[in-house]
Amino acid sequence: MTTGVDNGRLDVSEPGQLMAKEIAEQPAVLARIVDEAWPHIQQVAAAIKQANPRFVVFAARGTSDHAALYAKYLFEIVLGWPAGLASPSTMTAYGARPDLRDVLYVGVSQSGGSPDLVGTLRTARECGALTLAVTNAPDSPLSAQAQLHIDVLAGPERAVAATKSYTAELLALYLLVDAMRDGDASAAAHLVDATASVVADVEPVRAVAARFRDAERLVVTGRGYAYPTAREAALKLMETSYVSAQAFSGADLLHGPMAMLQGGSAVIAISPGGVSGSAIAPVVERLTEIGTNLAVVGESATAGPNVARLPLPAGLPAELSPIVEIVPLQMLARELAVLRGNDPDAPRGLRKVTETW
Amino acid sequence: MTTGVDNGRLDVSEPGQLMAKEIAEQPAVLARIVDEAWPHIQQVAAAIKQANPRFVVFAARGTSDHAALYAKYLFEIVLGWPAGLASPSTMTAYGARPDLRDVLYVGVSQSGGSPDLVGTLRTARECGALTLAVTNAPDSPLSAQAQLHIDVLAGPERAVAATKSYTAELLALYLLVDAMRDGDASAAAHLVDATASVVADVEPVRAVAARFRDAERLVVTGRGYAYPTAREAALKLMETSYVSAQAFSGADLLHGPMAMLQGGSAVIAISPGGVSGSAIAPVVERLTEIGTNLAVVGESATAGPNVARLPLPAGLPAELSPIVEIVPLQMLARELAVLRGNDPDAPRGLRKVTETW
Repeated sequence: MTTGVDNGRLDVSEPGQLMAKEIAEQPAVLARIVDEAWPHIQQVAAAIKQANPRFVVFAARGTSDHAALYAKYLFEIVLGWPAGLASPSTMTAYGARPDLRDVLYVGVSQSGGSPDLVGTLRTARECGALTLAVTNAPDSPLSAQAQLHIDVLAGPERAVAATKSYTAELLALYLLVDAMRDGDASAAAHLVDATASVVADVEPVRAVAARFRDAERLVVTGRGYAYPTAREAALKLMETSYVSAQAFSGADLLHGPMAMLQGGSAVIAISPGGVSGSAIAPVVERLTEIGTNLAVVGESATAGPNVARLPLPAGLPAELSPIVEIVPLQMLARELAVLRGNDPDAPRGLRKVTETW
Repeated sequence: MTTGVDNGRLDVSEPGQLMAKEIAEQPAVLARIVDEAWPHIQQVAAAIKQANPRFVVFAARGTSDHAALYAKYLFEIVLGWPAGLASPSTMTAYGARPDLRDVLYVGVSQSGGSPDLVGTLRTARECGALTLAVTNAPDSPLSAQAQLHIDVLAGPERAVAATKSYTAELLALYLLVDAMRDGDASAAAHLVDATASVVADVEPVRAVAARFRDAERLVVTGRGYAYPTAREAALKLMETSYVSAQAFSGADLLHGPMAMLQGGSAVIAISPGGVSGSAIAPVVERLTEIGTNLAVVGESATAGPNVARLPLPAGLPAELSPIVEIVPLQMLARELAVLRGNDPDAPRGLRKVTETW
């Protein structure tokens, strides 16, 4: 039976083919964003600069919340803006009416349909914020509510587990920040080849899936820009393989949850090159000492029978690495689900659009 | 063998007695804060109001990060300030130098000793923020670094799993917000009796511990003000019982992780009265339908053999409820650890002060 994402044909009778197809579409989606969305993103950046806010708040749920977390790092590090993630319930459940003058309020959502996000953006605008919707649905209620809108151009996403819409949101948010610093989007051009090479390299993913086949619990860790990747990977693994996957920043892991881990515990560490990699290195060393069953995404100074690797293409800037890092982990979530006899296209108890209140 | 927190004597040969002692101290600690810290907290509030910031950012790790999350809700809902949680690595690892004019930057830490927090507060001050340290260590490096300081007066905390310093941080942060709205701290007076009644009521806790005795994975959920409680409860359970405990806001749970849950899955739902309770009610209903092994902290419309309750005293305002809600869950973490043959006072791989970088 072929189950690989390297299979170009779509056989919907096979479990996980929908998710495989959308994972494989990502190089084309990223190319489309650079080619087609960039001019509009530059206009949005110009409108933001004209309004001159000094703070940014992101509101999102699920996978899009991890894209928002990535954007929070970008705004803080690249633009030097104080940034926060909203707790939508403060406005929708508790009726908070914060003073949002000088605030850019960004709602991120694949479907643009969740009522609590629409309500949050409406309230944010009433409270003085400049509002921006980043969605994969230009005609959605969220887009209609916001003053500014970016369409991430991922195309219809049918698998319940979001994949291409996530990397599309990341790239659109990166390009927004790049436009705001008067960049030329050139660094993003390498993403297409980098992502394509990861999508084509299914063997390391299958080897890790086999190692984690019987794992009931799994920890994913990363630091800085790699932390959103850890969060999103854990969510994909929960949604498709029903494994109890938990994400921790490397620093938080040492503040308590490390006690859960022992020899043989399943762990994934995100260790790209550069600062995000050197920041996680001491954590990887500790995990190796304990004897965890460890998969390292990217570079690793440690090796041995307990350490597997999911390689990443070299030379990506730290800011862009998350767009590529998540891809082998999306593939892993799909492979692991199929290996365990689940259908990742039909997770129990989930629907594509979740209406929260 | 007596292992209860209702045992006033401290027998250090028994596992978890240190943690039991510090859990039981909480009513006295809360009384001390109201009596002794309030005048100083009012002075700190006056100094903040004079500087007139409009935004607040919190920096913290581990248990203190959950106190920071609680404070984020308070500042957003009660004071109407946009609020964010810092990612310390943006400054310490990536060298971000954000524009922090008009920002109150609050570091929360039991020990006040973690180098990355000290560095973060130093940078925040250089970048124009007004800095405040909330610690249980007035002579700590973090307190020395900050322009303003609040001592939470919990007394020396010796157990690795923080308990009394958490509720002390919550109350100190509540009182700060109360002082900033020109309150008189009167609502906090009821906390002492409420907490004492929970500490004395060990039987429901033992019953839930027995139900969760063999659980390897556990989900904790709460919404709004109750979400920090869910996060902190999950951390306590991980630290002491090594159970893979995950916290989700009720809304996020429906966005994916619900797929992990099935009949018999161990779940804790925080359901105080008021808005936090009605916001979680549909989630509790869904969890009951699935047939999870459910413990409800507080009120529940559902009942049956699969649903246990950890009662809370009635009549607490939503803002103050988290200070009481966490106590039965601290007790549960300790009971469950002892029942599983662990010593909650000596979690493997952890130290009291974690130095992250």
